[in-house]
Amino acid sequence: MAKQILVDEELLGFSQGLADAARNIVSQYFRRTYSIDSKSDQTPVTVADREIEARMREMIAAQFPDHGIFGEEFGKTQADAHHVWVLDPIDGTRSFITGMPVFGTLISLLENRQPVFGMIEMPALGERWWGGVEIGARCNNERVVVSGCESIEDCRLATTSPGMFDAEQQKAVERVVDRTVNFRYGGDCYNYATLASGYLDLVIEADLKPYDFCALVPVVESAGGVITDWQGARLTLESTGEVIAAATPELHAQAVEILTG
Amino acid sequence: MAKQILVDEELLGFSQGLADAARNIVSQYFRRTYSIDSKSDQTPVTVADREIEARMREMIAAQFPDHGIFGEEFGKTQADAHHVWVLDPIDGTRSFITGMPVFGTLISLLENRQPVFGMIEMPALGERWWGGVEIGARCNNERVVVSGCESIEDCRLATTSPGMFDAEQQKAVERVVDRTVNFRYGGDCYNYATLASGYLDLVIEADLKPYDFCALVPVVESAGGVITDWQGARLTLESTGEVIAAATPELHAQAVEILTG
Repeated sequence: MAKQILVDEELLGFSQGLADAARNIVSQYFRRTYSIDSKSDQTPVTVADREIEARMREMIAAQFPDHGIFGEEFGKTQADAHHVWVLDPIDGTRSFITGMPVFGTLISLLENRQPVFGMIEMPALGERWWGGVEIGARCNNERVVVSGCESIEDCRLATTSPGMFDAEQQKAVERVVDRTVNFRYGGDCYNYATLASGYLDLVIEADLKPYDFCALVPVVESAGGVITDWQGARLTLESTGEVIAAATPELHAQAVEILTG
Repeated sequence: MAKQILVDEELLGFSQGLADAARNIVSQYFRRTYSIDSKSDQTPVTVADREIEARMREMIAAQFPDHGIFGEEFGKTQADAHHVWVLDPIDGTRSFITGMPVFGTLISLLENRQPVFGMIEMPALGERWWGGVEIGARCNNERVVVSGCESIEDCRLATTSPGMFDAEQQKAVERVVDRTVNFRYGGDCYNYATLASGYLDLVIEADLKPYDFCALVPVVESAGGVITDWQGARLTLESTGEVIAAATPELHAQAVEILTG
């Protein structure tokens, strides 16, 4: 059996190096001139996405040759390994290409298909969150914790875009939105990071891929929050992509009831 | 006849003082605990909105007792004056209350009902844009200029929220959105600021009030861009609130044709 990885200072230091590499590449491209391609699913991709993921894959292969990698741009390598890094070089590419600094690099480590460590790096904002079961959740080295919000009526709610939802999902989300005035669109991974810090109470999204959500799970959970699919089940590599994150179990239960009701 | 105001170093220095005051008050409230009220139009408002506007009104009344003021939270004072300051203490209150740093303070000076100076202050991002006919457009003292984008297919497009549009407006905007992959929701006043800096090429919004758009006009125009209503007419205090801003006249003309087509 493969040895268990400790989420320790050494792993954290290595992950900080991955995030530093991403921040450095972003500084060469953000708000500068580069070509934008359209992928087969009609989503945009840039040279920065590809360069960041390629660099992180090189660093992982050199340090952990036995580990697998699953990245948004270059797919799977040794994906059946006991330890797999799941990477999204730029989450929020639409923000990146429109000059909006709210985009992130997502780095996570799965052990036996379960995320045990996650990092949300915001290169253009200079903010970096990470979390894991043994280490708690931090932003720029400061311990973070979710808000105590237990009520839908008082909660601060965000979702990235109505384009994430099909007609039925949209109706379900609108039932939740109708319960609060504190709602906005936008954010991508930043919504989950700010939820971990207690600035936001509820995030409801859909159509997320494993590289979109794996890094979020340890950050939200180790900050004291709850993150599941819309049925309240644990997120796995086989999840449908419906994701709900809440500051408290009480708020989570209310939102799940409204979504599925 | 009232004397003409020169958009000069003195006026700019005074406006910087208004923006500094806003930034200082924001630092006391953003991502901290405060109550959120709901206004009669169901939009949220905080103590920070009110405190910023009250402070700016005090400063203007002390410096320019003959000038009028029109602010989002406290309405009109001497609004028939030859010079009127139009103020939005927090544009993007929904971002402010959900921990997202993309919100701004909007400051503009109207002469004979025409905006001659505008400032877009982003307190939580440390960025400040301003513009006026005699002074050009700047961000943090650096000269800014729009992109040269002339084509809908290549343009980077943003709009704050689908909630801005009625059904007919939504259909018109979707005709434009369908022409580019480089589209996102979110941004509020930041969309116009980043357009002035050349990071974004096109913004299409509706339901904006004079305190939402007056400050944008001198910034966008003095950076070389075009900003009008959806029919291509100059924005006035009587405009319907439909706003389109584009990096070039060519791009503007194409977007207006699609919107009205």
